[in-house]
Amino acid sequence: VKSNSLIKEDECLDDLQLNGLMIIQKKKAFKFGIDAVLVANFASSKENDIVCDFGTGTGVIPLIFSAKNKFKKIYAFEIQTDIANLAKRNFEYNKLQEKIELVNLDIKNVVDYVGKSSVDVIISNPPYFKTGGAIVNENDYKAISRHEIKIDLEGLIRSGNEILKPNGSFYMIHRPDRLVDIMYYFRKYFIEPKLIQFVQPKAGKVPNLVIIKAVKNGKNELKYLPNLVVYNEDNTFTKEIDIIYGREG
Amino acid sequence: VKSNSLIKEDECLDDLQLNGLMIIQKKKAFKFGIDAVLVANFASSKENDIVCDFGTGTGVIPLIFSAKNKFKKIYAFEIQTDIANLAKRNFEYNKLQEKIELVNLDIKNVVDYVGKSSVDVIISNPPYFKTGGAIVNENDYKAISRHEIKIDLEGLIRSGNEILKPNGSFYMIHRPDRLVDIMYYFRKYFIEPKLIQFVQPKAGKVPNLVIIKAVKNGKNELKYLPNLVVYNEDNTFTKEIDIIYGREG
Repeated sequence: VKSNSLIKEDECLDDLQLNGLMIIQKKKAFKFGIDAVLVANFASSKENDIVCDFGTGTGVIPLIFSAKNKFKKIYAFEIQTDIANLAKRNFEYNKLQEKIELVNLDIKNVVDYVGKSSVDVIISNPPYFKTGGAIVNENDYKAISRHEIKIDLEGLIRSGNEILKPNGSFYMIHRPDRLVDIMYYFRKYFIEPKLIQFVQPKAGKVPNLVIIKAVKNGKNELKYLPNLVVYNEDNTFTKEIDIIYGREG
Repeated sequence: VKSNSLIKEDECLDDLQLNGLMIIQKKKAFKFGIDAVLVANFASSKENDIVCDFGTGTGVIPLIFSAKNKFKKIYAFEIQTDIANLAKRNFEYNKLQEKIELVNLDIKNVVDYVGKSSVDVIISNPPYFKTGGAIVNENDYKAISRHEIKIDLEGLIRSGNEILKPNGSFYMIHRPDRLVDIMYYFRKYFIEPKLIQFVQPKAGKVPNLVIIKAVKNGKNELKYLPNLVVYNEDNTFTKEIDIIYGREG
């Protein structure tokens, strides 16, 4: 069932190869990467859970997550109106608009929308880079997705603390060089890191991504999953990555 | 040159297999482990550096470190009088008492001994376990070495901040399940984690030790070394461990 009216001229339609899900993306903007897929797979929810995606972009995390989990509702927050509109069309295209609600809102204000201590699960693939002194275009989608222009890591975690229920989970993927920031702010805002997995491009290499599950008011004890290796020595994907991408057989 | 007068009846003399160094240990107390060897090898100093070991035990870290680095002086702090006496004899036995000074002092009070902002390098293999509600013998050497009875992680790092010069380094080995505590307290006391290496027993396993270099007033960016694997599949030591133990060929 192709609804071409939902797709604009500068956009393309890609197959997520998961339960028949399709995703509209900008031809020229950067497309979703392995990080969104990894955190969407790492996260989980239960039947009556309220789930939030902080900075949903084109909506790829809720799309993948919804195919693999039971939940009551997903609120997908996106501050940029253009891309929020695209995410909304993605949920409509896949007939998921009843279960996944796009909310065009600043993450700093999510508590006004969902209410205090009301959310079971937060997922986020946030901007990885500090703005530092670099000049960035404040209206550039790619820049806003990659740099902490609209919100920084502390703001993201502070908002998470406001809306999470006690024992609610915050799943985040980020760059390993920010790990001290991540742990410091989670602890500061009472969301305790409980499970961590480093992702490395090949065996014997240093990690280039880290996935964390943190739990509101959780006990202080961090557990580890074995590092996830993306490529074999011959540059094919490892078995573990094939399983995540649904190519296991 | 064996000086038997330095060795008591309940003690034994072991060969460190490094520059002819020997170590006196208690026959019945637990002996130094791979963690002390790893952190002593991970740390480094320069010619005029003042170095401190927080909780030296029998003095194994200063002994190994002194064989591989230039430095002006090492202060080896140990709160337990019996074991401090043993460490002192170890430095004397190896004729290192001019370079390594045993100080029988609570780490909370090290600033009174060495002075504020006076130290270039701190090394520590601290007690790994919280005391929790468990009953522990306050005079049991093994319990004090393993549990945070005399000092906890925050106290250790607070003392480090008092005595470290700006840009001074704090090297620590600990258990990975305490990583949030480690990063939170280092950041809280202005000693920024800069380099990290996880140690795992075998390939594909989760880490059971973590080694960190943190720098006073350092810039916020954590770098990684590839994980250190201890055993091959056939339970022999890996090449990397053989190199650290000086058995490389």
